[in-house]
Amino acid sequence: MYIEKINSPSDIKALDITQLNTLASEIRSGLMNRLSKRGGHFGPNFGFVEATIALHYVFDSPRDKFVFDVSHQCYTHKMLTGRRDAFFDDEHFGDISGYTNPDESEHDFFNVGHTSTSVSLASGLVKARDLTGAGGNIIAIIGDGSLSGGEALEGLNFAGELGSNFIIVVNDNDMSIAENHGGLYRNLKALRDSDGRCECNLFRAMGLDYLYVADGNDIAVLIEAFRRVRDVDHPIAVHINTVKGKGYKPAETQREQWHWHNPFDPATGRALSSRDGENYGDMTCDHLMKKMKADRSVVTITAAVPTNIGFTEEKRREAGAQFIDVGIAEEHAVAMASGIAKAGGKPVFATHSSFFQRTYDQLSQDLCINRSPATLLVNTASVYGMHDITHLGIFDIPMMSNIPNLVYLAPTNCEEYFAMLDWSIEQDRYPVAIRIPCNGVIHTDEPVDTDYSELNRYKVTRQGSGTAIIALGDFYQIGEELAELIAASTGTAPTLIDPRYITGIDTSLLGKLRSAHSTVITLEDGILDGGFGEKIARFYGASDMKVHNFGLKKEFVDRYAVDDILRDNHLTPEHIFNDVFGGEEC
Amino acid sequence: MYIEKINSPSDIKALDITQLNTLASEIRSGLMNRLSKRGGHFGPNFGFVEATIALHYVFDSPRDKFVFDVSHQCYTHKMLTGRRDAFFDDEHFGDISGYTNPDESEHDFFNVGHTSTSVSLASGLVKARDLTGAGGNIIAIIGDGSLSGGEALEGLNFAGELGSNFIIVVNDNDMSIAENHGGLYRNLKALRDSDGRCECNLFRAMGLDYLYVADGNDIAVLIEAFRRVRDVDHPIAVHINTVKGKGYKPAETQREQWHWHNPFDPATGRALSSRDGENYGDMTCDHLMKKMKADRSVVTITAAVPTNIGFTEEKRREAGAQFIDVGIAEEHAVAMASGIAKAGGKPVFATHSSFFQRTYDQLSQDLCINRSPATLLVNTASVYGMHDITHLGIFDIPMMSNIPNLVYLAPTNCEEYFAMLDWSIEQDRYPVAIRIPCNGVIHTDEPVDTDYSELNRYKVTRQGSGTAIIALGDFYQIGEELAELIAASTGTAPTLIDPRYITGIDTSLLGKLRSAHSTVITLEDGILDGGFGEKIARFYGASDMKVHNFGLKKEFVDRYAVDDILRDNHLTPEHIFNDVFGGEEC
Repeated sequence: MYIEKINSPSDIKALDITQLNTLASEIRSGLMNRLSKRGGHFGPNFGFVEATIALHYVFDSPRDKFVFDVSHQCYTHKMLTGRRDAFFDDEHFGDISGYTNPDESEHDFFNVGHTSTSVSLASGLVKARDLTGAGGNIIAIIGDGSLSGGEALEGLNFAGELGSNFIIVVNDNDMSIAENHGGLYRNLKALRDSDGRCECNLFRAMGLDYLYVADGNDIAVLIEAFRRVRDVDHPIAVHINTVKGKGYKPAETQREQWHWHNPFDPATGRALSSRDGENYGDMTCDHLMKKMKADRSVVTITAAVPTNIGFTEEKRREAGAQFIDVGIAEEHAVAMASGIAKAGGKPVFATHSSFFQRTYDQLSQDLCINRSPATLLVNTASVYGMHDITHLGIFDIPMMSNIPNLVYLAPTNCEEYFAMLDWSIEQDRYPVAIRIPCNGVIHTDEPVDTDYSELNRYKVTRQGSGTAIIALGDFYQIGEELAELIAASTGTAPTLIDPRYITGIDTSLLGKLRSAHSTVITLEDGILDGGFGEKIARFYGASDMKVHNFGLKKEFVDRYAVDDILRDNHLTPEHIFNDVFGGEEC
Repeated sequence: MYIEKINSPSDIKALDITQLNTLASEIRSGLMNRLSKRGGHFGPNFGFVEATIALHYVFDSPRDKFVFDVSHQCYTHKMLTGRRDAFFDDEHFGDISGYTNPDESEHDFFNVGHTSTSVSLASGLVKARDLTGAGGNIIAIIGDGSLSGGEALEGLNFAGELGSNFIIVVNDNDMSIAENHGGLYRNLKALRDSDGRCECNLFRAMGLDYLYVADGNDIAVLIEAFRRVRDVDHPIAVHINTVKGKGYKPAETQREQWHWHNPFDPATGRALSSRDGENYGDMTCDHLMKKMKADRSVVTITAAVPTNIGFTEEKRREAGAQFIDVGIAEEHAVAMASGIAKAGGKPVFATHSSFFQRTYDQLSQDLCINRSPATLLVNTASVYGMHDITHLGIFDIPMMSNIPNLVYLAPTNCEEYFAMLDWSIEQDRYPVAIRIPCNGVIHTDEPVDTDYSELNRYKVTRQGSGTAIIALGDFYQIGEELAELIAASTGTAPTLIDPRYITGIDTSLLGKLRSAHSTVITLEDGILDGGFGEKIARFYGASDMKVHNFGLKKEFVDRYAVDDILRDNHLTPEHIFNDVFGGEEC
């Protein structure tokens, strides 16, 4: 096998085209080995094998610098830069992350995982190279799906101003995670259909030079193209047409399902495990479908991750004009939701906590200053959510809850979640965000409120004394366990509270707690800094109440085990009990 | 005067072209009256008089809906929609805001003030109209300068998908606030030069239909163009070429200086007051110029507001390749700064606190996960900063300081500010943000630290006992006054602390305070929620220390008087003293 001899990119330069094609097959077998057993980004990597080989063949990494957008297509790059074992040797799967990572290799320059950032990041490398005279080619690699994101478009527009060597490889497989959305994709099609000759050209309109490569999975053709642009003295877009999932039929034909895939049987393409039982994705979709059928003004909006709330291709078709996927364009999604709400529609925009980070200004300016009654569903906003450093869901409380006029709700169970969603869709006074629980679908027999319009009213679920536990959202269940532990250990049952509202405190209830409580414990599924518990600490700051805040440390963690991080942050009932009552006899 | 008879847009429909042209002159006299006496956005409004008249002549507001981008060009619209007195009658200047405002008129749909939002907001109106069958035209009005912003580009790309009536008027005066930046402006020029016939067309590449109007200051021509697109059944960009500042020579020739202007003498164009004495804008520019001359790797970056740190046209030219204005593209600016820093450059990106809101995800993902040692200068981050609801500088502490890995510093005087800036530029370990003081240039004779690499060390500036005042950034001076008041009133001098670091607490110092202090007072120039003081409250939550946090309430305030808001938030030494010690004898 050739791949066994590739320890750095220079090792491929001695191979001829036939050998490089064999190498591509070997790389696909490595990809298949890892992805079928461990899961990961399938389509992006299978489609970009040949282009990666050609890039490393023509350019000299790390003097020439590659910046991968999202970097979910970087597996071949990892194999060619000393990280082969992480694909061929199952014991080494854990050696690498799923994204570029400077800690792994001198051939990686940034830790990335969000889309649409490569052109801007790489333009910084261009600028620094030109000021310091360091030399070398700078190459940004961006997929067509990422082009719709504001940061990418800002970067493309600005790239032309740099006026020196800058190569932007546009990997066009005619897909985002789901299908692409937006007019620019009609232009990409026109360019593909005209073999790059169409006069109307987005890249040229943005001030860039342009080169089209029809077969982006042909190594020889790619090598020739990259040789043409190597050491170019100005910015140029190299538009290459690739096949997403190339080399594996199920992935070539079902491109959305195979963008990312769980472990599967390579012979059949069938997943090794199935998602059994209830989940909030499918339940949210079903709930919204019912709403939309009953009321034509309800609109569901997603941004390139429609299945995060269960909207499969079939469901999207069924919802028709009342469903909008905007592609990767979260800023647009929030502002458009504000516009829909302002005109009497009932928009619901859902995406991951980590992707709401792209929308701070839109939340503040477009939505909250205008008090537009849109609903935002914040998904995987939890330590139980996504575990990659670039996709953490533990920062949304400080980011969103301190924006005026927003009502941010944290349901503690299934019934409360859907009651809040129903209320939010029908009310017309507030922008409302809801944190979808992330600790499994937990049901309650207790009645839940249906009206949340009187803001910041906490709910006492168990009246006790001595200690009050204010357990926010999906840490409520930890609060329940803690309450039992305290009752059993001290003989006094504490008060347990479901605060529900993240964005404000129930000053009346908190004031009343003083009469029969000396200790308040807050629990929140997110970082403590700027979060929920600190507001309680401030409220009681000048009083005799002892306040203990429990939540996560402010840090970027990567590929963590949930149990580890809960233990490290003292987020088990036993840890909390010991921290609060450790000095006392129990 | 015709303007005297215009109480609603329908009143202009009876006028003929000659009368409409006279009306335009009258409107300019109203603009001149208000702007020369009160200041405001000059160039955008003078250039858009004819277009606004034509829009209201052809369309039927509010059934047809106009959404103005930034809305700094909406003064003529205000005059034609019942708000004439705010321009002609000095006593009524205060009746209106400088931006569209739904509280003022049924002809305004959104409170806006940030750029690049109109297409997305308007597309929400389009979607809601189509679902509810409400009918009417939706018209977004966007300046060429706003086109470079990510939200605008996301919106333009998505607009084509709406597939129904949507008119996007692109007001092209070949200027942003300063000159435009980016390749798309070469395409706008090619379109202007070819009378709209150039085959390569950004708007068509984005999937939109297109119409060009060469003379965007000719009412008759504009009326004809708008009539052609009225009730169009698909999205279309109407590209009109206008003259910024049209009708006033100084504004037509010095377009950057007259984008926004202070009160002036209409006869000469000279400002009625001049900026005397020291200011951090000019001082920052001078400081950075010296740095750049001494070190070729230092790069200053701004985003369409270069003079906010003193970079006038002349200074920009002098700085050459080491100065970059990216235009309205803050996301790109932060990501590019990360790239520059990663490659060994020393980037300094400065903009207003309110505009950093566009960059949350770039701060988190591009900059802080990657620990790129860039410097961010956060300007007008203060209650003393900008007073419009859309430009408030009191939210950056919760937004930025809770992002891991960022070091956010708050200098308390001039010497500390520049010491921090020097340290930040030269160090290579941390992304650093600095809050430029906003309460005047205050000097100190005391020595200031030059090395801030050991994080989160507060500085005790006056050792006392009983009470400790932790006074952050430009509220330090309130802390000084408060210290004197406490000493004089209680006979015990308190401890005064300059905490310097917003992003972390000095646990060692805070722990030691316990021995001789029973009360801690925190002061911060921003909202309390998610801010600095709450971290201190959390630290002492389970102890006997009494903590009082002083700062601003979480709310969107509009056109406030500083004294009022300080009083309302109990942010005077007397208020604070009474709140903390009111119950005690003093």
